[in-house]
Amino acid sequence: MSKPYNRLDIDQAVVLLVDHQAGLLSLVRDFQPDQFKNNVLAVADLAAYFKLPTILTTSFEEGPNGPLMPELKAQFPDAPYIARPGQINAWDNPDFVAAIKATGRKQLIIAGVVTEVCVAFVALSAIAEGYEVFAVTDASGTFNAVARDAAWNRMSSAGVQLINWFGVACELHRDWRRDVEGLATLLANHIPDYRNLMTSYGAFKGAHRDPQAA
Amino acid sequence: MSKPYNRLDIDQAVVLLVDHQAGLLSLVRDFQPDQFKNNVLAVADLAAYFKLPTILTTSFEEGPNGPLMPELKAQFPDAPYIARPGQINAWDNPDFVAAIKATGRKQLIIAGVVTEVCVAFVALSAIAEGYEVFAVTDASGTFNAVARDAAWNRMSSAGVQLINWFGVACELHRDWRRDVEGLATLLANHIPDYRNLMTSYGAFKGAHRDPQAA
Amino acid sequence: MSKPYNRLDIDQAVVLLVDHQAGLLSLVRDFQPDQFKNNVLAVADLAAYFKLPTILTTSFEEGPNGPLMPELKAQFPDAPYIARPGQINAWDNPDFVAAIKATGRKQLIIAGVVTEVCVAFVALSAIAEGYEVFAVTDASGTFNAVARDAAWNRMSSAGVQLINWFGVACELHRDWRRDVEGLATLLANHIPDYRNLMTSYGAFKGAHRDPQAA
Amino acid sequence: MSKPYNRLDIDQAVVLLVDHQAGLLSLVRDFQPDQFKNNVLAVADLAAYFKLPTILTTSFEEGPNGPLMPELKAQFPDAPYIARPGQINAWDNPDFVAAIKATGRKQLIIAGVVTEVCVAFVALSAIAEGYEVFAVTDASGTFNAVARDAAWNRMSSAGVQLINWFGVACELHRDWRRDVEGLATLLANHIPDYRNLMTSYGAFKGAHRDPQAA
Amino acid sequence: MSKPYNRLDIDQAVVLLVDHQAGLLSLVRDFQPDQFKNNVLAVADLAAYFKLPTILTTSFEEGPNGPLMPELKAQFPDAPYIARPGQINAWDNPDFVAAIKATGRKQLIIAGVVTEVCVAFVALSAIAEGYEVFAVTDASGTFNAVARDAAWNRMSSAGVQLINWFGVACELHRDWRRDVEGLATLLANHIPDYRNLMTSYGAFKGAHRDPQAA
Amino acid sequence: MSKPYNRLDIDQAVVLLVDHQAGLLSLVRDFQPDQFKNNVLAVADLAAYFKLPTILTTSFEEGPNGPLMPELKAQFPDAPYIARPGQINAWDNPDFVAAIKATGRKQLIIAGVVTEVCVAFVALSAIAEGYEVFAVTDASGTFNAVARDAAWNRMSSAGVQLINWFGVACELHRDWRRDVEGLATLLANHIPDYRNLMTSYGAFKGAHRDPQAA
Amino acid sequence: MSKPYNRLDIDQAVVLLVDHQAGLLSLVRDFQPDQFKNNVLAVADLAAYFKLPTILTTSFEEGPNGPLMPELKAQFPDAPYIARPGQINAWDNPDFVAAIKATGRKQLIIAGVVTEVCVAFVALSAIAEGYEVFAVTDASGTFNAVARDAAWNRMSSAGVQLINWFGVACELHRDWRRDVEGLATLLANHIPDYRNLMTSYGAFKGAHRDPQAA
Amino acid sequence: MSKPYNRLDIDQAVVLLVDHQAGLLSLVRDFQPDQFKNNVLAVADLAAYFKLPTILTTSFEEGPNGPLMPELKAQFPDAPYIARPGQINAWDNPDFVAAIKATGRKQLIIAGVVTEVCVAFVALSAIAEGYEVFAVTDASGTFNAVARDAAWNRMSSAGVQLINWFGVACELHRDWRRDVEGLATLLANHIPDYRNLMTSYGAFKGAHRDPQAA
Repeated sequence: MSKPYNRLDIDQAVVLLVDHQAGLLSLVRDFQPDQFKNNVLAVADLAAYFKLPTILTTSFEEGPNGPLMPELKAQFPDAPYIARPGQINAWDNPDFVAAIKATGRKQLIIAGVVTEVCVAFVALSAIAEGYEVFAVTDASGTFNAVARDAAWNRMSSAGVQLINWFGVACELHRDWRRDVEGLATLLANHIPDYRNLMTSYGAFKGAHRDPQAA
Repeated sequence: MSKPYNRLDIDQAVVLLVDHQAGLLSLVRDFQPDQFKNNVLAVADLAAYFKLPTILTTSFEEGPNGPLMPELKAQFPDAPYIARPGQINAWDNPDFVAAIKATGRKQLIIAGVVTEVCVAFVALSAIAEGYEVFAVTDASGTFNAVARDAAWNRMSSAGVQLINWFGVACELHRDWRRDVEGLATLLANHIPDYRNLMTSYGAFKGAHRDPQAA
Repeated sequence: MSKPYNRLDIDQAVVLLVDHQAGLLSLVRDFQPDQFKNNVLAVADLAAYFKLPTILTTSFEEGPNGPLMPELKAQFPDAPYIARPGQINAWDNPDFVAAIKATGRKQLIIAGVVTEVCVAFVALSAIAEGYEVFAVTDASGTFNAVARDAAWNRMSSAGVQLINWFGVACELHRDWRRDVEGLATLLANHIPDYRNLMTSYGAFKGAHRDPQAA
Repeated sequence: MSKPYNRLDIDQAVVLLVDHQAGLLSLVRDFQPDQFKNNVLAVADLAAYFKLPTILTTSFEEGPNGPLMPELKAQFPDAPYIARPGQINAWDNPDFVAAIKATGRKQLIIAGVVTEVCVAFVALSAIAEGYEVFAVTDASGTFNAVARDAAWNRMSSAGVQLINWFGVACELHRDWRRDVEGLATLLANHIPDYRNLMTSYGAFKGAHRDPQAA
Repeated sequence: MSKPYNRLDIDQAVVLLVDHQAGLLSLVRDFQPDQFKNNVLAVADLAAYFKLPTILTTSFEEGPNGPLMPELKAQFPDAPYIARPGQINAWDNPDFVAAIKATGRKQLIIAGVVTEVCVAFVALSAIAEGYEVFAVTDASGTFNAVARDAAWNRMSSAGVQLINWFGVACELHRDWRRDVEGLATLLANHIPDYRNLMTSYGAFKGAHRDPQAA
Repeated sequence: MSKPYNRLDIDQAVVLLVDHQAGLLSLVRDFQPDQFKNNVLAVADLAAYFKLPTILTTSFEEGPNGPLMPELKAQFPDAPYIARPGQINAWDNPDFVAAIKATGRKQLIIAGVVTEVCVAFVALSAIAEGYEVFAVTDASGTFNAVARDAAWNRMSSAGVQLINWFGVACELHRDWRRDVEGLATLLANHIPDYRNLMTSYGAFKGAHRDPQAA
Repeated sequence: MSKPYNRLDIDQAVVLLVDHQAGLLSLVRDFQPDQFKNNVLAVADLAAYFKLPTILTTSFEEGPNGPLMPELKAQFPDAPYIARPGQINAWDNPDFVAAIKATGRKQLIIAGVVTEVCVAFVALSAIAEGYEVFAVTDASGTFNAVARDAAWNRMSSAGVQLINWFGVACELHRDWRRDVEGLATLLANHIPDYRNLMTSYGAFKGAHRDPQAA
Repeated sequence: MSKPYNRLDIDQAVVLLVDHQAGLLSLVRDFQPDQFKNNVLAVADLAAYFKLPTILTTSFEEGPNGPLMPELKAQFPDAPYIARPGQINAWDNPDFVAAIKATGRKQLIIAGVVTEVCVAFVALSAIAEGYEVFAVTDASGTFNAVARDAAWNRMSSAGVQLINWFGVACELHRDWRRDVEGLATLLANHIPDYRNLMTSYGAFKGAHRDPQAA
């Protein structure tokens, strides 16, 4: 009756960042803007930190949808970058799927805008082909909370796992001893409350353990 | 363990608009009124745009429930129109079911008022007969968010897929290249933020790509 | 892949009203008090209207939990009334189960206070014994929305169907022609917006179709 | 101790529409987008309906702030249109103030984006010069409800009157007999619930009093 | 620096019920419907209980606005009833003002739909003529909480006192000993939590102090 | 144009605890129950800590309103305790006013249930007699946030100052050096986040500065 | 089609308290702080009351995460206490799993901070090994409600049962007659509304049944 | 009747940053943490950008309150820094007041933690001495929205002006032509939606006007 708990694994996971474009981002209203930007950059940072293969894709970036967030381009200069000529579901783009297959990995960590389309369509397609799919709930945004709830329901019903970026980071890291400084820096750079804890801790100890902000 | 992802298909889908009547609309309080009206008209517009067979039905329209929204009648003058003499579940009306069967299609896109009755009863009946059922979450309204949550839970547990109108439009369209102007117009007419993007884009380019508002 | 849609049936359904006691009602904060009282009385009214066997039970009513809402006692003077001597899960009380079995019915409509205990425990026990169980979401209350969400999740995962009183009434009634006046009165007495529709309708028509308030 | 109640007067009022530009509109998050667009167009419609002098102004419209909403331009082709070269407070622009003074009127109805700057700065400047100032609360938007609350507080403390577009329309109209059809059309075009009432009323009466939608 | 606290006085107060009409009630969304209906009936009950002169007025009741709530008509069969032929501000109707003046009283308790028009316009007019004005906050409704906040701000800035029906009842009653049974009945009939307290109290005491429900 | 800032002063302030009775507390829904109880006990603790004269009063405590919270009785065994025989406004009770006058103090810190009656009536009466009045916003509760907002508006318009218990404590204490341990204990006992800070601080320092919980 | 309802059983259940540390607690924002602290202490109290084996664990308690809540340490001085040297998922710590196995029990009641990591990882691992897992929803906290919703979804999809502390207590107790005083004390100490009921009840009866507060 | 509108002036304004300490920040719950941190840094950036004299102060920074946010120290290395030895109201610290007076300026822009104490006490003291006081609403935080509302009310009643950081920046800047690049950079660095507009604008124009992120 119980089945194995397949954790996210740094040797099995790929990160797919789908359509975080300047125009489309203005549609996102299920998160407060500062919070959403921070969450997207946190996913990017964790992908970089764990050296996960990362694939970028955009939809019509020369039109109203606008260009990809410059921070993402800057962080992954060598990542596969698929500017889709028209496919709404990135999975319909052979280059996108090929880039995933080229990694040989089976765990997909997906974030995108908007949740019910750019994330859900890819997620459902990937599940259907046997991938383990993790939708990053807080780095994927849409028009409002009602739209989000429906998108989550549809993905979850199909077997997609819902997880926030913090959960992804912790499930990948597994043990603080793997790199205390690295994980602490990642958390402090994206969780103000955690940085506060580290600031106080550093002051109390008279030590200089506060990681440098990005 | 994985099953195929059967997408909404313009050759397989039928749209069922159930009981969007002037009186019943006053019961809807899980959406803000401007938003809900816009969502219902968006479903009508997408049905027309994708030329999906569309079926209208009402419950006791000569009584307090009131007449169908005039915009819907106007948009689908030739659609099957079943003014039910009493059946609460439209599926209990043989003409309604016959109209669906006459299309030979197996994907039902349902929106209606109120969600837990006019939408859910039809959805559950259709699932039981083997249809693929998609409830349009944001063009279906009810008394409050708690009522909506329960209705979604009951439908989802039975296999109904929950999806907002934007998701429906995008899953049907599949590729922007199918008709860029058409989809952009549909979106801009019902998503103010998207129209803003197009207005700015048009101004920046000095072009006149902004589609005409309805 | 699809299974039959077993609707609530006036010949199969029993109503269980569990622990709507004056003291316990003060614990309910996931509904606004006017709304919750109205919902509970609506379930009572529909039980009476559809002549469904109805079973009342209380927990320690002579202590702080307080007596049953007097309106319920008054409405069902001849119903089985099980003042439990201590069992928290009413299903643990043989008289309660015996009263259900005596009806020979298999569909249980349950409402109670608080949701995660008085409703959920009975619902889970009944599901385990093969009953079809419907939890009346808006006539069952608890400490806050978070408690409600968890209780719904636990029940739904076990196969309990979540449905509000309006859904129950409509699924039982099936066709307005069964008794237009009766259903309209039930709705108007518990849905102010529906009464408003009827008031306007009556005035416009110059008729006196507005059902008498209770 | 009491002072006169100076009502909005169709012979004394001017409408100022400040910076409803496509880019700036994407910053507005204290209203749901469908609702806000509707409210802004309602103010434009009431200005046109009551033939109030109307003044349009924009800030840097050729830059990221984007062009004025095309609907506003279209509705007031002959209105003074001040594309400010840099002044953030429109009152600092002599042409803007001159346009107001040219009307000879003393009641200013102001709506704009964002509330605490484009509306509040003009409102505070105008109050200081002895105008009666009415800020249209629901056609003025900003980053979030907290920003709105502070902006309202600052304006109200200075003597600005807060009023929504519906209040403006009703205070100007004063008596339905002035033009029943006209006011009803204005309301129905921007209040879905009011249109529903008119649709039902029209149907019940068998008359065709439902005003044409725009 | 301090001024006298002029309390509501049963010999000085008049109740004005403005436009609680079946159609207009469907516009009210800043209160949950069960709650709002209860609040309006509570004001009516307190007016009757304290034998306050009460004046009813409606706006275009033969049109879409609909007839007055039947409960109000029934409760005040002999009250002045001004069906206004067109004036939006009831104060513009000479019969309405005459009815107030005929009472010789100076404290006006006003409730109505919608708050920013039917209540605020009357309130501002009355303040300007030297009346003490009390707006009943929870028996006056409007489109949403933002509209309510602005209406409250405008009234409060002009000197109107904001008070809910419970405050009105308690300020009028002053001392429980004036009539314990009467006030308790009024409260229990409109505050479910208070009825629960009385039910438990009655049960504990073995007494029959629970007042009869209406 | 500026007036002096009269701070709360430990030699001038009196604490009035009005009607925190077991029955009436069940009416309070504008605060979450754990939070409200904590706030009330915090006011009691600060009154005791600063040795402020404290006056307790109740309304009909032998009836459904129920007895005073036992914790308050226990904490102030020798305080004036006025069980009012019927006056709703405690200021109408001569013993209550006499108890205040006996202190010779002019700053009243008032908390009670419910806000718009038990707190506001006393506050307005006291303002009218020239007292400085501080309503403790978070130790005063009522039916819902709308009721609270109106009550605050009425009190504030009359000159009552709104302040939470934390503000009261800090304004009275003025300087940490007056008693570091004492204030820290008060805060930690009623602000879980502050206790967490002290727990971490104590652990980091290896010291035992964490004050004992009550 | 139905499966047995395995209730929580005092002879089968173990309580796991995971990472309720002073620093991590400052990250919890999906509950109000007073409420969350109360909930955590309620779980501790019920574990002690039912004499359930209880296991404590912390993550890096000498760093910014801070020490365990002192109240938990104090309440379970002899419980297994696993200060994990680095494992994020407590299940990866052999001592933690060994402590669970040593109890020979199969029902795990888990509460912790934060929900999607410290609770979910343990829960998923335990489910995979065949345990029955109950996540205590209101004694587990995280960054915000969106994070909670996703965490619940992931756990529930894997078979974890969601239940609040009140549900746990009632399911374990089963019958009030097992120990009326004990359960009443537990409830009254952590549910202010329940204490109010008992206070009133005690006063009405003239008895001293109010259990002593902790 | 009207009084002059004294705008914030770069030659008259001083910025006071009060107690933004790592420990105290964990108490702030009326803003989402990412948002609050961003707002505080925005005030710091605008102070630096407009070269406003800026004064830093802390309360007991070596204790649980924790050290000042390192970013603030880093940005104003030469600013007066008053580590108060105990005064809760910074105005009671002579060095703090002296630092203000040394600037010779009369407009105080205050932000701090927590709002009702660290901000309000200073604001009320400064108003009493004739300063113009502006409380930065969104860079001042407290326990919850109810605490904030009361603090705003108290300050506003005393003449403090409430304004968010965006309003401060715009009122100081006055005209875009003063420095287009500078203001745009400030806005883009702290308003994600504004950066998106600039990103799209830059891409459309093929220009590189997007200011560098900090």
